[in-house]
Amino acid sequence: MAKTKFDGSDGRVRAVIERVTPSVDGGRFAAKRIAGDEVIVEADCFTDGHDTLVCLLLWRREDEQAWREAPMAALGNDRWRGSFTAASVGRYRYTVTAWVDHFLSWRHDFARRIEAEDLRVAAQVGAGLIDEAAQRAQGGERKRLKTWAADLRAVTDALALKALGLDEELAAIARHYPDRRYAATFPVEHPLVVDRERARFSSWYEMFPRSAAPEPGRHGSFRDCEARLPYIAKMGFDVLYFPPIHPIGRVNRKGVNNAVEAAPGDAGSPWAIGSVEGGHKALHSELGTIEDFRRLAASAQTHGMELALDIAFQCAPDHPYVAEHPTWFRWRPDGTVQYAENPPKKYQDIFPFEFESEDWRELWQELADVIRYWAGEGVRIFRIDNPHTKPFPFWEWAITELKREYPDAIFLAEAFTRPKVMHRLAKLGFTQSYTYFAWRNSKHELIEYFTELTQGPGREYFRPNAWPNTPDILTEYLQFGGRPAFIVRLVLAATLAASYGIYGPAFELIEAAPREPGTEDYLDSEKYEIRGWDRDAQHSLSDLIARVNGARRDNPALQSDASLRFYPIDNDSLLCYSKSDAELENLVVTVVNLDPHHVQSGWVELDLAALGIDAQTPYQMHDLLSGARFLWSGARNFVQLDPQRAPAHVFALRRKVRTERNFDYFL
Amino acid sequence: MAKTKFDGSDGRVRAVIERVTPSVDGGRFAAKRIAGDEVIVEADCFTDGHDTLVCLLLWRREDEQAWREAPMAALGNDRWRGSFTAASVGRYRYTVTAWVDHFLSWRHDFARRIEAEDLRVAAQVGAGLIDEAAQRAQGGERKRLKTWAADLRAVTDALALKALGLDEELAAIARHYPDRRYAATFPVEHPLVVDRERARFSSWYEMFPRSAAPEPGRHGSFRDCEARLPYIAKMGFDVLYFPPIHPIGRVNRKGVNNAVEAAPGDAGSPWAIGSVEGGHKALHSELGTIEDFRRLAASAQTHGMELALDIAFQCAPDHPYVAEHPTWFRWRPDGTVQYAENPPKKYQDIFPFEFESEDWRELWQELADVIRYWAGEGVRIFRIDNPHTKPFPFWEWAITELKREYPDAIFLAEAFTRPKVMHRLAKLGFTQSYTYFAWRNSKHELIEYFTELTQGPGREYFRPNAWPNTPDILTEYLQFGGRPAFIVRLVLAATLAASYGIYGPAFELIEAAPREPGTEDYLDSEKYEIRGWDRDAQHSLSDLIARVNGARRDNPALQSDASLRFYPIDNDSLLCYSKSDAELENLVVTVVNLDPHHVQSGWVELDLAALGIDAQTPYQMHDLLSGARFLWSGARNFVQLDPQRAPAHVFALRRKVRTERNFDYFL
Repeated sequence: MAKTKFDGSDGRVRAVIERVTPSVDGGRFAAKRIAGDEVIVEADCFTDGHDTLVCLLLWRREDEQAWREAPMAALGNDRWRGSFTAASVGRYRYTVTAWVDHFLSWRHDFARRIEAEDLRVAAQVGAGLIDEAAQRAQGGERKRLKTWAADLRAVTDALALKALGLDEELAAIARHYPDRRYAATFPVEHPLVVDRERARFSSWYEMFPRSAAPEPGRHGSFRDCEARLPYIAKMGFDVLYFPPIHPIGRVNRKGVNNAVEAAPGDAGSPWAIGSVEGGHKALHSELGTIEDFRRLAASAQTHGMELALDIAFQCAPDHPYVAEHPTWFRWRPDGTVQYAENPPKKYQDIFPFEFESEDWRELWQELADVIRYWAGEGVRIFRIDNPHTKPFPFWEWAITELKREYPDAIFLAEAFTRPKVMHRLAKLGFTQSYTYFAWRNSKHELIEYFTELTQGPGREYFRPNAWPNTPDILTEYLQFGGRPAFIVRLVLAATLAASYGIYGPAFELIEAAPREPGTEDYLDSEKYEIRGWDRDAQHSLSDLIARVNGARRDNPALQSDASLRFYPIDNDSLLCYSKSDAELENLVVTVVNLDPHHVQSGWVELDLAALGIDAQTPYQMHDLLSGARFLWSGARNFVQLDPQRAPAHVFALRRKVRTERNFDYFL
Repeated sequence: MAKTKFDGSDGRVRAVIERVTPSVDGGRFAAKRIAGDEVIVEADCFTDGHDTLVCLLLWRREDEQAWREAPMAALGNDRWRGSFTAASVGRYRYTVTAWVDHFLSWRHDFARRIEAEDLRVAAQVGAGLIDEAAQRAQGGERKRLKTWAADLRAVTDALALKALGLDEELAAIARHYPDRRYAATFPVEHPLVVDRERARFSSWYEMFPRSAAPEPGRHGSFRDCEARLPYIAKMGFDVLYFPPIHPIGRVNRKGVNNAVEAAPGDAGSPWAIGSVEGGHKALHSELGTIEDFRRLAASAQTHGMELALDIAFQCAPDHPYVAEHPTWFRWRPDGTVQYAENPPKKYQDIFPFEFESEDWRELWQELADVIRYWAGEGVRIFRIDNPHTKPFPFWEWAITELKREYPDAIFLAEAFTRPKVMHRLAKLGFTQSYTYFAWRNSKHELIEYFTELTQGPGREYFRPNAWPNTPDILTEYLQFGGRPAFIVRLVLAATLAASYGIYGPAFELIEAAPREPGTEDYLDSEKYEIRGWDRDAQHSLSDLIARVNGARRDNPALQSDASLRFYPIDNDSLLCYSKSDAELENLVVTVVNLDPHHVQSGWVELDLAALGIDAQTPYQMHDLLSGARFLWSGARNFVQLDPQRAPAHVFALRRKVRTERNFDYFL
């Protein structure tokens, strides 16, 4: 007979562990949570036969060696659940261990034994197991276990024996000293990234600092931005994001409205980075000095805001890197550097980096150093321009390294591209991601997309950041829908997604003219010129924005995405959904009229049971935008929205309605 | 600035590969296929930016070192698909490799270039890439590539240059010599187990050989079984499965109807294995000699049948192992061996093995040797008794080792237990699995369960084997439903599952009396006594069984499970479903009246598009059980089934109906 081989593992490891969750690509990537979150981990655990299993959740900070342990409880159908609190930002690991516990199996059977002789023999067996536990125990507990074992051997009366064997207190001691020699441990130590609160809940305001001057035509500066802070803070934003603030290239500079050749005095695109004045670590001189920047950052903080910088890894032809590090670029046979192109289109003002350079390590190092430089200046939020045009391994390495040094750093991936590419970027480390929100306008599209974002596998790692507009995206819905369209998209972004942003003042001033019909480019885009804005204009949405952001700040329901649920409503122009906090104490129900042109009405049908509302008791719907209060009862209620007056309700649902029972003399 | 570290992988590997399928637990376990199958492998593959990707499927037999390659084609949304034919039984591995192909990226862009100067510069770049390809080529192809590169450098006319650069034939040569230095390869080499056809399609007949004698009361023998072969073959079965055929223990032997004490002469349970005459490698002497066994096996083969043996790893108290290998058992403090028990129940005639023995390696080795011994006798199908009461790692090791020696071996897991346990056994290597079929009787239950079995994740590794009855399972449905119930369950098992079995002659003789009400045990069960059977009884279902198995043999649709689809029918007692072959050439539609007591009728609604049937053209439904033919047209058709006459239709759907167009003179 052929002798067969063993693989070296111990055949007595009988527990099986499967399907540990959360799990992103089987543990290849980290799930994401927020500091203070209870991290719930589940696994399928079982063994052969009828023996009793003990399962533990093992977890640790990645920078610690020793595992901490948390109990796991059986949920039924061989599923187990445990949890731990991720108290602070950083990287964690978790896995699951389980073993067949002979003491607990013995106890389980002992409780079911009836015959005296059976009990006596079983007591001897139990005494042996308890003696073994005693060997693993110390001091007083060891002594108590030894005594217990001796008693089990000595007592002969069946009833007394049974009581002794099932002693709860002694069993609790024995349980502390299990035999874990043959414990199975799930082989994957799943990674977890724990971020600060703002990674989950953030309200972004994008502006071009060069347009911050009060006088039309003058180049704005950081000092001018400082003067704008109260205006932005009053609207309730907490992240102030600037396009690149570095020297702008002069070679092949683009003119206004993206003209191929700049006229003298044209400001150029801030994304064409680098000139003789410097590159990614320098400041565009007209914006101010590094001291001005620091002062602005500090002032923003006093206004409850944090600066976010734009990291665009590309160079103008006159960027110092081109001369200093020629191997970081691709050279053409005619001795020129390969500019960006998507034939037949050419972007001769932009040189991409050559990531297949022999000197890729130096290039990676320098690019990480760019972010590290600004992190050194106190910046912790980075909006990364087109990350999907740089290699994925670079980002995984750079973000992991930088978050090791700055675990509170937040990276927003500006990748408007194919879904799997966007998901890969989120998996490999981006904290937040731009979404397709701008192009999801119909009821069906919004329900499908936000259900996928909040319930699909991406919920563990992809944190959506919804933008109604950006300097590159003026959607047709905004172009043609007028003021109601801007309000609708604002309310949707701010209540569907815990993180959202607007590009202003274009947004609040309802800037809606495209450069030409059929494009999403702004006419006279700030990308290519300095714009003056009448921030105090009568038609500004700034007050409404303040109310929307106020609702977000005051309602925990709107500060995370997992609870989002849509409800039926018998009108395809009306969209209704709710968000809640974990305890169902804070409930927000939003109803939006997606049609910016007509009054729409319909019957909403809430899932009262899921919302924890008694079907028999009326409840109050307090519109946080208008202040109006409505009394609703039961699942079905009528809604009518006039886009010219108020295209949306953002209701705080209040369960307690005042009735005669609230009066003292009722009792 | 802190210098950060690299992990040693090359940062120029830019292709990304994700979500390779099929994948069982991320490649921890093998997917299963049949020899001759086209194995379709898919993966998400993409890279940064716009470059062109090449993806290849890598596959090999596990016993070969070198990968074979098959092309993968893009399906859209970054999903790629390739396939290979698994020609023979055994273990395979597959994975995916992908790289950014600079030659193809260049060619893609070159086709889009317009300006003459652009084309000239690009031609120089292409010449460089083609020169590199030439370095990797040999002989005539190298020469042709070198000439092509030279021409691209020499030609100046833009139109001529464009045509030269896009030459199809030369491109095909260059494509054969890609630069794979920075190819990404998915890190998991997914395992695949390829079995022979019978693993997917098998019809089992279980019988107790000791009840095979023609004279009532006499102990049957292998010779008697031989005489039964034509009877079983005529019914169309291809697997003949015997309960254990080893010496039966005498100590604590159970009596008839599971009496605690056997009376003198009681035959005992064949699952109480081992006596002084021998153990798992010996034969129960009254059944015959090893020569008789070999003769029976050979004779079965001439009848188109294969023997399946029962492997029950447990011992009677007088099994030779107990004395020879005391460490393989658990000893109680009173000096006796621990018998099987589930307190307060005791099974004193059965000693389980102690798998936590210090000598577990020797135990594992011997148990594998038991199977190896019978494999040496030519047996290739093993029904494993209660595998879920032995450690999972043992089975994974044993099945893997044994299939290395006998890749055509088939293991059926007799595990009626919790779902995740059953799935684990299938994942770790069992070829087929018993199911919950016996207890799925209502329309809703059957649709839910068989949809899960055929469409759920288990479809890659869990091959269901459906049994209407076993010696342990006489369901209430069979007890109370009479002859129609037996027919219903037979047809369901045989048409829902490509593998099924019956325990006969109890089944075909409609044996329906339980030992006591409320149990599923047979009265006068063959487990504990020899039974005589009137196989020629008038009421026997043997002819119907022959027709059912004939339909299975003649219709490839019924020989696999993946194509199963259920259809709406407006009567909860009627169940309708179809199966088809991959080409939709063979279609079988089954309609079953689940109510064994009443006539039921209703309107079936087929999905004609999915079945490839023209909605305007009538089609023929040929009942393979009754021979009747019906002309149906459109999706909705009426069905009525009288349980007393025929509780089921098994229709072959024939698309071509004879019309006037079939006559020569129509044209």
